[in-house]
Amino acid sequence: MENNIFHLQYAMDTFYFLVCGALVMWMAAGFAMLEAGLVRSKNTTEILTKNVALFAISCIMYLVCGYYIMYDGSVFLSGIADVDVDAVLGDFAAREDGFTGGSIYSGASDFFFQVVFVATAMSIVSGAVAERMKLWAFLAFAVVMTGVIYPLEGSWTWGGASVFGMYTLGDLGFSDFAGSGIVHMAGAAAALAGVLLLGARKGKYGANGQVNAFPGANLPLATLGTFILWMGWFGFNGGSVLKLGDIGNANAVAMVFLNTNTAAAGGAVAALVTARMLFGKADLTMLLNGALAGLVAITAEPSTPTALQATLFGAIGGVLVVFSILALDKLKIDDPVGAISVHGTCGLLGLLLVPITNGDVSFSGQIIGALTIFIWVFVASLVVWGILKAVLGIRVSEEEEFEGVDLAECGMEAYPEFTNGK
Amino acid sequence: MENNIFHLQYAMDTFYFLVCGALVMWMAAGFAMLEAGLVRSKNTTEILTKNVALFAISCIMYLVCGYYIMYDGSVFLSGIADVDVDAVLGDFAAREDGFTGGSIYSGASDFFFQVVFVATAMSIVSGAVAERMKLWAFLAFAVVMTGVIYPLEGSWTWGGASVFGMYTLGDLGFSDFAGSGIVHMAGAAAALAGVLLLGARKGKYGANGQVNAFPGANLPLATLGTFILWMGWFGFNGGSVLKLGDIGNANAVAMVFLNTNTAAAGGAVAALVTARMLFGKADLTMLLNGALAGLVAITAEPSTPTALQATLFGAIGGVLVVFSILALDKLKIDDPVGAISVHGTCGLLGLLLVPITNGDVSFSGQIIGALTIFIWVFVASLVVWGILKAVLGIRVSEEEEFEGVDLAECGMEAYPEFTNGK
Amino acid sequence: MENNIFHLQYAMDTFYFLVCGALVMWMAAGFAMLEAGLVRSKNTTEILTKNVALFAISCIMYLVCGYYIMYDGSVFLSGIADVDVDAVLGDFAAREDGFTGGSIYSGASDFFFQVVFVATAMSIVSGAVAERMKLWAFLAFAVVMTGVIYPLEGSWTWGGASVFGMYTLGDLGFSDFAGSGIVHMAGAAAALAGVLLLGARKGKYGANGQVNAFPGANLPLATLGTFILWMGWFGFNGGSVLKLGDIGNANAVAMVFLNTNTAAAGGAVAALVTARMLFGKADLTMLLNGALAGLVAITAEPSTPTALQATLFGAIGGVLVVFSILALDKLKIDDPVGAISVHGTCGLLGLLLVPITNGDVSFSGQIIGALTIFIWVFVASLVVWGILKAVLGIRVSEEEEFEGVDLAECGMEAYPEFTNGK
Repeated sequence: MENNIFHLQYAMDTFYFLVCGALVMWMAAGFAMLEAGLVRSKNTTEILTKNVALFAISCIMYLVCGYYIMYDGSVFLSGIADVDVDAVLGDFAAREDGFTGGSIYSGASDFFFQVVFVATAMSIVSGAVAERMKLWAFLAFAVVMTGVIYPLEGSWTWGGASVFGMYTLGDLGFSDFAGSGIVHMAGAAAALAGVLLLGARKGKYGANGQVNAFPGANLPLATLGTFILWMGWFGFNGGSVLKLGDIGNANAVAMVFLNTNTAAAGGAVAALVTARMLFGKADLTMLLNGALAGLVAITAEPSTPTALQATLFGAIGGVLVVFSILALDKLKIDDPVGAISVHGTCGLLGLLLVPITNGDVSFSGQIIGALTIFIWVFVASLVVWGILKAVLGIRVSEEEEFEGVDLAECGMEAYPEFTNGK
Repeated sequence: MENNIFHLQYAMDTFYFLVCGALVMWMAAGFAMLEAGLVRSKNTTEILTKNVALFAISCIMYLVCGYYIMYDGSVFLSGIADVDVDAVLGDFAAREDGFTGGSIYSGASDFFFQVVFVATAMSIVSGAVAERMKLWAFLAFAVVMTGVIYPLEGSWTWGGASVFGMYTLGDLGFSDFAGSGIVHMAGAAAALAGVLLLGARKGKYGANGQVNAFPGANLPLATLGTFILWMGWFGFNGGSVLKLGDIGNANAVAMVFLNTNTAAAGGAVAALVTARMLFGKADLTMLLNGALAGLVAITAEPSTPTALQATLFGAIGGVLVVFSILALDKLKIDDPVGAISVHGTCGLLGLLLVPITNGDVSFSGQIIGALTIFIWVFVASLVVWGILKAVLGIRVSEEEEFEGVDLAECGMEAYPEFTNGK
Repeated sequence: MENNIFHLQYAMDTFYFLVCGALVMWMAAGFAMLEAGLVRSKNTTEILTKNVALFAISCIMYLVCGYYIMYDGSVFLSGIADVDVDAVLGDFAAREDGFTGGSIYSGASDFFFQVVFVATAMSIVSGAVAERMKLWAFLAFAVVMTGVIYPLEGSWTWGGASVFGMYTLGDLGFSDFAGSGIVHMAGAAAALAGVLLLGARKGKYGANGQVNAFPGANLPLATLGTFILWMGWFGFNGGSVLKLGDIGNANAVAMVFLNTNTAAAGGAVAALVTARMLFGKADLTMLLNGALAGLVAITAEPSTPTALQATLFGAIGGVLVVFSILALDKLKIDDPVGAISVHGTCGLLGLLLVPITNGDVSFSGQIIGALTIFIWVFVASLVVWGILKAVLGIRVSEEEEFEGVDLAECGMEAYPEFTNGK
C-alpha cells in the first residue's frame, strides 16, 4: 500500500516536471518568433537559424558537460535500464517521514526540465546581437555559454556550490526562485558583452544623436512569440517549485501559475500606458516587452507575493522596461529586440523585489548574488567574445550587413516573394 | 495513509486545473492570430494590440472584482502563506465519504482556470469590431465587460446566484457545461451591441446591396489561430469537468476531450462541403469557421453525447455558421471575422442541443437561460458602448479608417516591408 | 483504500494520455505551418485547406471504422453513461497483482491518443504532393488512407493481428515503439506512391538535369512548424509508453522525453554541419529537416538508448536526410517539403537502429516489418491514387499550376496584399 502510494507520487511529480519542461522548451519557439518578428526581413532567415541551432547546441552541451558542472549529475546518462525500482523503493522505505522527504522523481525528468532553461538563457543573447553578428561566431559562443559559463554560475546558486571556494550565495541570504538573475540577467549580461564588442547596426544612431527606428518586419510573429513565452513561463516558474505531489506544494504551484500570469498582465498594461504617455500612441512592441518584463520581474519569487502584489511587481517591470529601452538607446547600446532591458534590467528588478515578500531573503544577499552572477557572466562572456573577435571575427562585413545577413550566411531569403524594397 | 492519498488527489486535481488553464490562456494567442490573419494588413498592429491588452485587462479586472462578483471568492488573494494545510486536511477528515465529497483543490488553481475564461469572452468582441473601432474606447469597454458584465452573468449560472433576485437558472433546468452561452454567446452579444452602434466598414456594403469582400491579409496566421483555439479548447471543455481524480471523473474528462475534438472535425468537414456547394470552391475561411462552430456547439454539453452524436452536433454547427455569416451580411451587420456567427449563433445552437443527450436539462430552461444571458449582456453592453460613443467616440475618423488604424492608433505598421499597395 | 489508490492511478494514466494526445493533435498545426512555409505563396491557401481538412477527415474516419479495424474497439462509442465504475473496480479487484496488471485507463483517452496518430500519418502526404495535386482527389485519398490503409497496417503491429493470416510481426521480433515505421514511413510510402503518379512540378527539373530551387514563401512559418512538431513529439513518443503511474513507467516516460529532445538536437546540428560542408551556407531548411529527421529516427525506440546514443541516432538521421533529399532530386522525385526523406528514409533508419539498444528486437524482424508496412501501404496507395487519377484526375491543369492552385481550388489568395510578383 505504502509502496503503491509512493509509486503514484513519484509518477505524478515526474509527469509534472515533464509537462513543465515541455512548456519551457516551447519558449524556444517564442524567442524565435519574437526575434524573427522584430528584425528586418533581410535578417530573418539568419535569426531563425540561430534560434533553432542554439537550442540544439544547448541541449547537447548541457548533456555533455553542463549538467555535471551544475549539479554533478551522473545517473541519467546510464539510461533507464540501470534505474533500479527496488533501490528507489528501498531508499524511500529508509526515510521515516515518507512524503515529507526529499523530492523523489525521475532523474531524467529533472535533466529534461533543467536543459530547457539553458536554452532560455542563450536565446536571450541572439536577439540583442541580431542583424550584424556572424552566425558561426555566435554558435561558437553558444557552445561555451551553455557548456560552461551558465552551468558554473548555476552551480553557485541552484547547485549550492561555493563561488570559486570563496562564499556560498545561499548562506548570504540570496534566493532566485526560477531565475530572474540566474537565467534572465545572466543571458542579458552575456548579450551586453557581445553588443559592446560588436557595436551598433550601421545607421542606427545618427551623427546628431538621433535614434533611427528600424521597424520589425512582422509584428504578428512578434506577438505570437510573446504569447508563446507567456504560456511557456507557466512551466518555467511553475516547474521551479520542483515538487507537486502534496497539498503544500500543489498550492505553491497553483499560486505560481496565478502570479506569473498576473505579473505579465500588470507589465503589459503598465507598459502600454507608459508608452501612451510618452509617445502618444499604443506602442505594440512596448506592450509586448511590458508583458515580458512583468514575467521576468516575478520570476525571482512567484510563490510568496499575493496576486495583487504580483500584479504590481509586474507593473513596475512594465514601466521600467520602457525607460530602460530608451536609456540604452541614449547610450548607443543597440539591442534590436530590447532583450537587455527585458531580461537584464527587469531581471535585476526581480531579484531586488524578493525580500519584500520573502522574509528569508536579504537585500544584501540579493545584491551580492546579482553582482556575482553579472560579473562572472559578463567578464567570462567578454573574454570569449573577445577571443572569437580576434580569431573568427564576430561582425559581418558592411556590405553583408547592408544586403542582409540572410543571403550572406544562409543563402536564402525568409520571404522571397514579399519584400517591396522599402 | 488516508491523508497521503488525499494529498495526492488534491495535487492531481490542482495540476489538472493548471494544465487546462494554461491551454485556455493559449486561446488568447489563437484569437489574436485568427483576427490578425483575417483583417487587412493596415489594421493588423491595432488588432494585435487589442488582443494582448484585453487579455491583460481581463486578468486584472477579474482579480480586482470579477471573481468576487461571480463566486464571492476571497481566499486566494491572501497568498499561499495563509492556506493552512492542517485545516484543509481537517476539513477532509470531517467528510465521511472521502473522495466522493466536494472538489478539493487549490483555490489559486480555480482562479487561474476561471480568469482565462473571462479573456475568451472578451476576445470574441475584438474580432467583430475590427478595422474601425477606436482602441482606447475598446479597452474601456473591456474593463467593464470583464469586471462587471460577464461576472454578474456568470454568477447567475456557474455562481448559482439568482437573476436580480427573481429566478435561479439552475432551478429552471438550465445547464451550460463549459460556456456555449455563458462565454461564447455572451461575447457575441457584447460584440453585436458594439457592431450595431459602430456601423459597417466603409465600402463593405455597396449601394445596390452587393457585399464587397475584404480578404484577410494573412491566411496562414488565421489557420494557426484556429489550430491554437482547437487545442486550447481541450482545456476549455476538459477542465470544466472541474475534477479529474477518480474513475468517473477521469472518464468524463476523457470523453470531453474526445467529443470536443470530433465536434470540431464534424464542423470543419460540414462547412467545407457546404461552402463547396454554395460557392463552388474549398473556402478556407469557412473551413476554419466551421471547425470553431463545431467547438462552440459542443461546449454546452461535451460529456453526455456519444462521439458520433458529437460529430453530428459539430456538423450542424458547421453548416449553420456558413448560413449565419451570409445572413448577417444580408442584414449589413459587418463582422470582419465572423465572430457573431461562430460564437453567437452556434453558442445558441449549443445550448439548444443539450437536452437531446442530457435528460436533466429542459428546452424551456435552455431558452430562458439563453434569453437571460443575451438580454443582459446585450443591453448592458449597448449602454456601455453608448456612453463610450457619447464621451470618447467609438469609431475612428474616415481618414484613419482609409489609411488604416495601425498608423493612427499605434504609430507602426505590422508589415512595413511587405505591402504591395493593393 | 485500495480502491482509492486505484481511482487515482486510473485518473493519472488517463490524464497522461489526454495531455500527450493534445500534444500530438498540436502536430497537425506543425505540419500545416511547415508546409505552408515551404510552398510558394500562390499555393498556400490550398495547402492550409488540405491540412485542416485532412485532420478533420482523419478524426471522423478513425471514429467510423479505423479504430475498429486496428483494435476492434467498441466500448468508447457508447459514451460515458455506459461505463460502469463498479465493473471497472471489480475488474481491478479480480487481478491479484494490482498495479502491475494491464493498463487501466479511460477507453476514450486511448481513442483520443490513437486518433491523432492517424492524422500525423496523413499530414506527411500533403507536403510531398503539394503545389500540383487536386484538392478533392487528395481528400478522397485521405478518406481511404485514414479509414482503411493505415488502420489495417496498424492492426498488424500495434493491434497484434496477423498479416493477412500469414505471419505475426511481433512473433518475428519486430518492434516499433511509437511509429518510425508504422506512422512515419507509412505516410511516406503513401506519399511516394502519389508523387510517382503525379510527376514533378513544372519547371522543377531542367532539360540538362539541373534542379531548380522553388524557395518557400515564408520561412518563419516553416520554423514555427518545426518547433511545434518538436514539442508535439514529446506527446507522440512520451504517450507511447502507454502508462505513467508507477516508478518504472514514469522513468520510461521521462527517458523518452529526454531522448526525443536530444535526438532532435543531434539531428539539427548534424544537418546544419552537413549542409555547411556541402553548400557552404547555414541552410535553414536543412536544419529544420535535420531536427525532424532526428525525431523520426528515435521514434522507433526512444526508451532504451542512453541520452548520448539518442543524440547520435538523431545525428545519423540529420546527415542521412540531407543526402536523401539530394538523392530524390537526382531521381526527379519531386517532394517540395522533403517529407519522403524525413519520414520515409529516416523512418526506416529508426527501425533499423532499434536492435542496437533493445535486445528483444532482431534486425531480420525489423526488415520484414519495414517491408510489410512499405509494400502494403505503397501498393494500396498506388491502387487508390490510380483509381482517383482515372476517375477524378489527381493533377491540376497546367494553367492552374502556373497561376497557383489557391485561386483555382480555394478562390482566395493566402497573402493578397504581399506578393511582389517575383
